[in-house]
Amino acid sequence: MPPLYIITPTYRRPEQLAELTRLGYTLKHVLNLLWLVIEDANKTNPLVAHTLDRIGVPYEYLVAPMPEQYKLTKRAKPRGVSNRNRGLDYLRANATEGVLYFADDDNTYDVNIFEQMRYTKKVSMWPVGLVTKTGVSSPIIREGKLDGYYDGWIGGRKYPVDMAGFAVSVKFLHERPHAKMPFKPGYEEDGFLRSLAPLQNNEIELLADECREILTWHTQTKKNPAALPFNQTRYGNTNLAFIEKLLVRP
Amino acid sequence: MPPLYIITPTYRRPEQLAELTRLGYTLKHVLNLLWLVIEDANKTNPLVAHTLDRIGVPYEYLVAPMPEQYKLTKRAKPRGVSNRNRGLDYLRANATEGVLYFADDDNTYDVNIFEQMRYTKKVSMWPVGLVTKTGVSSPIIREGKLDGYYDGWIGGRKYPVDMAGFAVSVKFLHERPHAKMPFKPGYEEDGFLRSLAPLQNNEIELLADECREILTWHTQTKKNPAALPFNQTRYGNTNLAFIEKLLVRP
Repeated sequence: MPPLYIITPTYRRPEQLAELTRLGYTLKHVLNLLWLVIEDANKTNPLVAHTLDRIGVPYEYLVAPMPEQYKLTKRAKPRGVSNRNRGLDYLRANATEGVLYFADDDNTYDVNIFEQMRYTKKVSMWPVGLVTKTGVSSPIIREGKLDGYYDGWIGGRKYPVDMAGFAVSVKFLHERPHAKMPFKPGYEEDGFLRSLAPLQNNEIELLADECREILTWHTQTKKNPAALPFNQTRYGNTNLAFIEKLLVRP
Repeated sequence: MPPLYIITPTYRRPEQLAELTRLGYTLKHVLNLLWLVIEDANKTNPLVAHTLDRIGVPYEYLVAPMPEQYKLTKRAKPRGVSNRNRGLDYLRANATEGVLYFADDDNTYDVNIFEQMRYTKKVSMWPVGLVTKTGVSSPIIREGKLDGYYDGWIGGRKYPVDMAGFAVSVKFLHERPHAKMPFKPGYEEDGFLRSLAPLQNNEIELLADECREILTWHTQTKKNPAALPFNQTRYGNTNLAFIEKLLVRP
């Protein structure tokens, strides 16, 4: 059974430990899987490591901070790009076979998609629910063949697909040593897939019952503000002093 | 091992199948559990049943529509109350032992909490993360004893706790045949717990390492609008005709 490498970018926020917990329990149903959890940070966080230990999925916990120049922009930031490129570097150094998949920590995955992507030869694709105003982003299959993409925002992209909608074989990645994700908000997937060229349309495998099923969803979690300051005088000698260490403060 | 009865209210929306899938994979790690999925609807939805079958957790799929009088209000609606009371009725008719827990489909649960709640004698409680501006809702434990509640909104409640923060033994429920949840937004938990009276503070078991850990989170998922109308002429003879049946339309 070829290994699966799941690359999950993450960053510190009030929801982080919950999101990793929830995703981890899905991944725990999948055999022969290595979870690459890569945080946009300068150093690892013991609370994240503790959470990953508790979940019990085999993992590597790495860091990959966003370059300073992108942090300063007032436009959309290229979130998760450093993390995912760090994951690609890891695979180039440590993996020889199997399949890689970019799984954000707030999405939802039916475990069947993992077994289907496991045998990807070059690139595989499938629909992702809850993407844009069309409600789904999907390859269009007409008479058994890939015939474009259905997505609420095309934006001049050659591959208007969601991050959760494709997997790539590790062997194929090794054949494309310069492939990487661009720091270009909205064009991360497109840029990465273009960097895998040459890739013919008939080399893209169409999963999820030839793209008739939705097995992945772009769920998004509401952001919570940092927790109110903690009253040490009032609660310092209660259980709340322990909980305090688990919360994200301003 | 006493059985766990997990009561999950749900309702039709674009995120519904994703949310049930994600929660289901957490529950699938827990033994001797019956999942009571109860939809605010007049009849069951075959797509929900299909999703529950695919997840593979033992379940009952029931319906319990919100009474018409509450649907018409312009204020906050008592969401999930009919569903949860239907779950209580089910347990009164079908269960003799074990523990019940109200688990909304968008929350996040560390599986350890299920094993801890399994032996609840009357009522057990623990902290819930991501609740109100305090970032957590929790019993306060001072010198080993329950000494009030920490929550960003007290609102005159005797039990200012979140729905995800307590479990009740089925035997104790049988001893309180009139216990039920009120149709009163914001006061559902408080009303239900009050209806279990008499219940002394020292009868409330404090879990999650005496409320020093966060094992449940009130994550909330962003709502998606209904998907744009589908162009039957253009896509009727493609895979999208199958996906169309999976989407929630206006």
